[in-house]
Amino acid sequence: MKAGRLNHIGIAIPDIAAARATYAALYGLDKVTEIRDFPKLGVKVCFVDTGNTELELLEPLGPESPVNKFLEKNPKGGQHHLCFEVADIIAARDAMRGKGTTLLGTGEPYIGAHGVPVIFVHPKDTHGVLIELMQAPA
Amino acid sequence: MKAGRLNHIGIAIPDIAAARATYAALYGLDKVTEIRDFPKLGVKVCFVDTGNTELELLEPLGPESPVNKFLEKNPKGGQHHLCFEVADIIAARDAMRGKGTTLLGTGEPYIGAHGVPVIFVHPKDTHGVLIELMQAPA
Repeated sequence: MKAGRLNHIGIAIPDIAAARATYAALYGLDKVTEIRDFPKLGVKVCFVDTGNTELELLEPLGPESPVNKFLEKNPKGGQHHLCFEVADIIAARDAMRGKGTTLLGTGEPYIGAHGVPVIFVHPKDTHGVLIELMQAPA
Repeated sequence: MKAGRLNHIGIAIPDIAAARATYAALYGLDKVTEIRDFPKLGVKVCFVDTGNTELELLEPLGPESPVNKFLEKNPKGGQHHLCFEVADIIAARDAMRGKGTTLLGTGEPYIGAHGVPVIFVHPKDTHGVLIELMQAPA
């Protein structure tokens, strides 16, 4: 299993509208998407196109949001995760398990904000960096 | 002033050799550089080529390293900064100052690990994310 391109960097922030405005000033309004709610994922999301990759701005949505704990530790916000593309998410998941890597949740891939299956690798196995693996979009 | 492509993501870790081995397993040994010491910058550095951008692995070098404080807060390591390319580092610096943004140090660009001038924007002005601006390599 080899990882591919960096699909995006997840950035968690308490106020997505304010962060979106900052990146719109830096990149241009045509490079930031509208803010969308993903109730099942527990986040509000907006993407910033840097040309070669994307930033994924994340604000918690609801008390069960997976981003709440991060913002308790980092109230101003910060870099939350890195997402690498893989050719086959099931093969990637099995390769990670084979190495004894801890996956978040059940380890079953689920559909993320990009509409393709993803898994998350626990940061204890990746030197403190939360890594998302994403089936490469077609 | 508009920002350009994401040049790299800085990742600070206590043991660069161990982190390099992890990313070599993920990307292949041909995608990670040798570890180099940058005594003036206070870091040991290794790059990981993801195809569309790079990871910059950083281990502190010496007691004055700018990465020491981050590792005190995040002993296992983590995502340290984002680096965006700009066409003209002086124009970018002046635009940032014009907005009242706080720059680290004197705000004078200095030569970073890529051999081109860089500045750093204080994370309090960018929603908790430490941002490096880099003169786009020729």
